[in-house]
Amino acid sequence: MSAPITVALLGGGTVGSQVARLILEQSDDLAARIGAPLELAGVAVRDASRAREGVPSALLTDDATALVARGSDIVVEVMGGIEPARTLILQAMAAGSSVVTANKALLAADGAALYAAAAANGVDLYFEASVAGAIPLLRPLRESLAGDRVVKVLGIVNGTTNFILSKMDEEGADYADVLAEAQRLGYAEADPTADVGGLDAAAKAAILAELAFHTRVTFDDVSCEGITGVTAADVAAARDMGFVIKLLAVAERTEDGRGVIVRVHPTMVPRSHPLASVRDAFNAVFIEAESAGEMMFYGRGAGGAPTASAVLGDVVAVARNLRSGGHGPRESTYADLEIRGIDQARTRYYVNLDVADRPGVLATVARAFSDNGVSIQVVRQEGHGDDAGLIVRTHLAQDGDLSRTIEALRSLDVVKQVVGVMRVEGEAGS
Amino acid sequence: MSAPITVALLGGGTVGSQVARLILEQSDDLAARIGAPLELAGVAVRDASRAREGVPSALLTDDATALVARGSDIVVEVMGGIEPARTLILQAMAAGSSVVTANKALLAADGAALYAAAAANGVDLYFEASVAGAIPLLRPLRESLAGDRVVKVLGIVNGTTNFILSKMDEEGADYADVLAEAQRLGYAEADPTADVGGLDAAAKAAILAELAFHTRVTFDDVSCEGITGVTAADVAAARDMGFVIKLLAVAERTEDGRGVIVRVHPTMVPRSHPLASVRDAFNAVFIEAESAGEMMFYGRGAGGAPTASAVLGDVVAVARNLRSGGHGPRESTYADLEIRGIDQARTRYYVNLDVADRPGVLATVARAFSDNGVSIQVVRQEGHGDDAGLIVRTHLAQDGDLSRTIEALRSLDVVKQVVGVMRVEGEAGS
Repeated sequence: MSAPITVALLGGGTVGSQVARLILEQSDDLAARIGAPLELAGVAVRDASRAREGVPSALLTDDATALVARGSDIVVEVMGGIEPARTLILQAMAAGSSVVTANKALLAADGAALYAAAAANGVDLYFEASVAGAIPLLRPLRESLAGDRVVKVLGIVNGTTNFILSKMDEEGADYADVLAEAQRLGYAEADPTADVGGLDAAAKAAILAELAFHTRVTFDDVSCEGITGVTAADVAAARDMGFVIKLLAVAERTEDGRGVIVRVHPTMVPRSHPLASVRDAFNAVFIEAESAGEMMFYGRGAGGAPTASAVLGDVVAVARNLRSGGHGPRESTYADLEIRGIDQARTRYYVNLDVADRPGVLATVARAFSDNGVSIQVVRQEGHGDDAGLIVRTHLAQDGDLSRTIEALRSLDVVKQVVGVMRVEGEAGS
Repeated sequence: MSAPITVALLGGGTVGSQVARLILEQSDDLAARIGAPLELAGVAVRDASRAREGVPSALLTDDATALVARGSDIVVEVMGGIEPARTLILQAMAAGSSVVTANKALLAADGAALYAAAAANGVDLYFEASVAGAIPLLRPLRESLAGDRVVKVLGIVNGTTNFILSKMDEEGADYADVLAEAQRLGYAEADPTADVGGLDAAAKAAILAELAFHTRVTFDDVSCEGITGVTAADVAAARDMGFVIKLLAVAERTEDGRGVIVRVHPTMVPRSHPLASVRDAFNAVFIEAESAGEMMFYGRGAGGAPTASAVLGDVVAVARNLRSGGHGPRESTYADLEIRGIDQARTRYYVNLDVADRPGVLATVARAFSDNGVSIQVVRQEGHGDDAGLIVRTHLAQDGDLSRTIEALRSLDVVKQVVGVMRVEGEAGS
């Protein structure tokens, strides 16, 4: 057996303590799989005086900079947040350490700097745990599909919002009530903005899009709308039509092949689609590739042990690279597609309108669609008198034309209120 | 850009011609992803005089041995069958070529010889396409889950049988009628034995089990039962109970942690389980790991282009290893678990009995279960007179005890016929 491979761990929270535990508990398995033992050099935490279950207290330190300066073979960063994580990762790479990180926010904001430092210092950068926790997803995208062309990625990548939307669908409950329940159960944070505002999903969408389309994509390139506006009425209307509402991260190549659009928004998905049955806090990513066709990856998107499993898979990969003399994938942005706005996406809309109950309303409404170049697929008239309503689903159209249609509808006398508007994904045909 | 990486292709059938087409059509993308162009050295086919769409005829040869002797960087074997594939692969490795193969039969029969030759010659052996076609599955198992402990693998890995069972479920049709339809549509071969007999699934189960449990597993280690005995009545009974019948490949660690059991058989799966919604010719593999929890991989299991996508992903991986100086994973059998027979598995049974309609029948039948150490979960009495029946589902028990129970039932006077017996998987609890 060869000399030990040293691992320094930055962060001793839910994920970090599980990573430490697994490295210590599964040391025999890990050594056999790598061909050399892993040795935990230290665990940097905020308060080194507080004991962590399963982590020998002698390994705890509150001096992350000093731990990084020891130049371990591998530095695992599971602190989260932009700073001091970025500075520590760059210092680690400069000291010759390969880095495994789960830091989606940092990767989505400034992944290019990390990649550049990894290449400059001849070290590895792995980050499987940054998207969809335990689901092996980035490695398949980077490696298994390296001989294919990805067309579209549709992902449920935020467990909190999927839990909330699943409960709203199952129980007919209001958003606010379910959010409060999710907070009680620990599925949502006291300040849930990053989750329910779609920001967490947007960071993951940027990471997925960069790998899928070999094009640099950052957080700022992602159009983002959260679920705070989704009502029990939207959920009920979706159910009536055979759909379920999901917060999707969508990354797609444009029809001309030269652009990429990345967006996060509440989406109506047909109940027959594989993503529709992804309930509770589970994650899943649906990928369409030219040769491979449709595939889906499903599993736990968060939690200490699942995320630690993904981190350790990366640690083993880096350790094997160190042993074999190779290195992992570098940044791949050769395709350099143009980042385009959501207004250029080809989407479908569902539109729910309160309308006046008088002759000619449907004709007026239909003209607002056709004047903006949008073709209607289905329209349903509901109720009468004060409760008169129209529910419209469109064919595929330019998203900008669809949003202009909504503006036009809002200005019509016969439209009392635009009750709901939502994009639709996962239907076959145009 | 570096010197070209040469690829020799053995086999010009459905998969081989798609691999050749993609290497030629996507040469710019592939070169950018690898950092060096791929160069197709030749395509060995049975009849080199017959043109293949998209493959320049100058590349065709009917002398596979001479092609292999040229010592290309990578040899892709997509001929199938044990010989001459094995001899050609071993010759290729001896000539210093890394090998990418989709040959499940050869890997399941004699993978150890291929691994040994790869290690001895310092070349790579990749085989993602051998199981579940386009679904990235083996790379996640070998690499992403390298820091975790797999507990159980449940796979729908044969598209033909899944197509047949899906149709039987949807249409209530008989096995023979659906098989004939599948043959008309090209989903089943004229001689369907390898598929419907479970042999194809058993080869894939052996490959999955070896990777999941770090233990050498060959085709002969797999208990195998096909779908030829599944009747429309079984399918209807499953449906009544909220189940669907799937041909599952199951690989599991035994409760004492020291053994592994690998089995293929028709299985009742609850309709709420993610595997239940895998229809038609799609494949999916459900994996349970200690830290990562439950995950599922879903996609196309066969077809020229999907399989070619998986082959090319491996070709890119080998090419990157050649460029970086590293190598891919070697055989990992360090755990060396004991292969145990299906009689030692802990399973549940569904049992459908024609019984005499007289007092005390249920008590007599129940005693046959308890005398063999099997606990009943649910029993349902149906019909009366000549149509009297009992449907029993058991709790988890040793498979050997369950099969002894069935023997005991067959010998009872009150049991006129054991109409159906099937194992159940995917239920929570005991």
